[in-house]
Amino acid sequence: MVLLRQEIGDVLRHARRQQGRTLREVSSQARVSLGYLSEVERGQKEASSELLASICGALDVPLSSVLSEVSQRVAAAENLVVDAVRVPDTVPDDLAKDVALRAGGLVSAA
Amino acid sequence: MVLLRQEIGDVLRHARRQQGRTLREVSSQARVSLGYLSEVERGQKEASSELLASICGALDVPLSSVLSEVSQRVAAAENLVVDAVRVPDTVPDDLAKDVALRAGGLVSAA
Repeated sequence: MVLLRQEIGDVLRHARRQQGRTLREVSSQARVSLGYLSEVERGQKEASSELLASICGALDVPLSSVLSEVSQRVAAAENLVVDAVRVPDTVPDDLAKDVALRAGGLVSAA
Repeated sequence: MVLLRQEIGDVLRHARRQQGRTLREVSSQARVSLGYLSEVERGQKEASSELLASICGALDVPLSSVLSEVSQRVAAAENLVVDAVRVPDTVPDDLAKDVALRAGGLVSAA
């Protein structure tokens, strides 16, 4: 199963690192705790819509851009799951395992 | 402020209605309570990533498609907010008021 919070977390972390900013800087500007932002970035906590908007504001990235990138990542993951189920040989082992984990055990790693 | 849960809720409700299905049918198939699904559709409750995936599964709509549509709606709303702030005359009054409400008071309705 592809989880929205993991993809959102990845995109937010990527945006922050691209700007060369620390968790402390962004969390302070977004008025969220450092621990909360860290958990959101690692996909361990669901960001509420308000706090997601606040984090996007602190990163100066439109929410729509984050969602667009997330949508593309989710689409890629969905296709990988389908491919892995249908034609396991076309997916590298480590990638297939990663996808299998995300798919919640849908795919048994070869 | 554009809130993710409101846009997700709108898109999910639109998809369900397009299929001519009831809240009861979809909630039962998604294994969520009818009240929960109803609140999610109205943007009153954040759907967890797991339950969002489950609702998308019940609707037979890829999560990526939902997010792509949500991203476009959020982009449109973001542009409306910017336009409303910059050139109030170009936005119909009722629309400007709606956007103003969503923007959390950023824009004062004329």
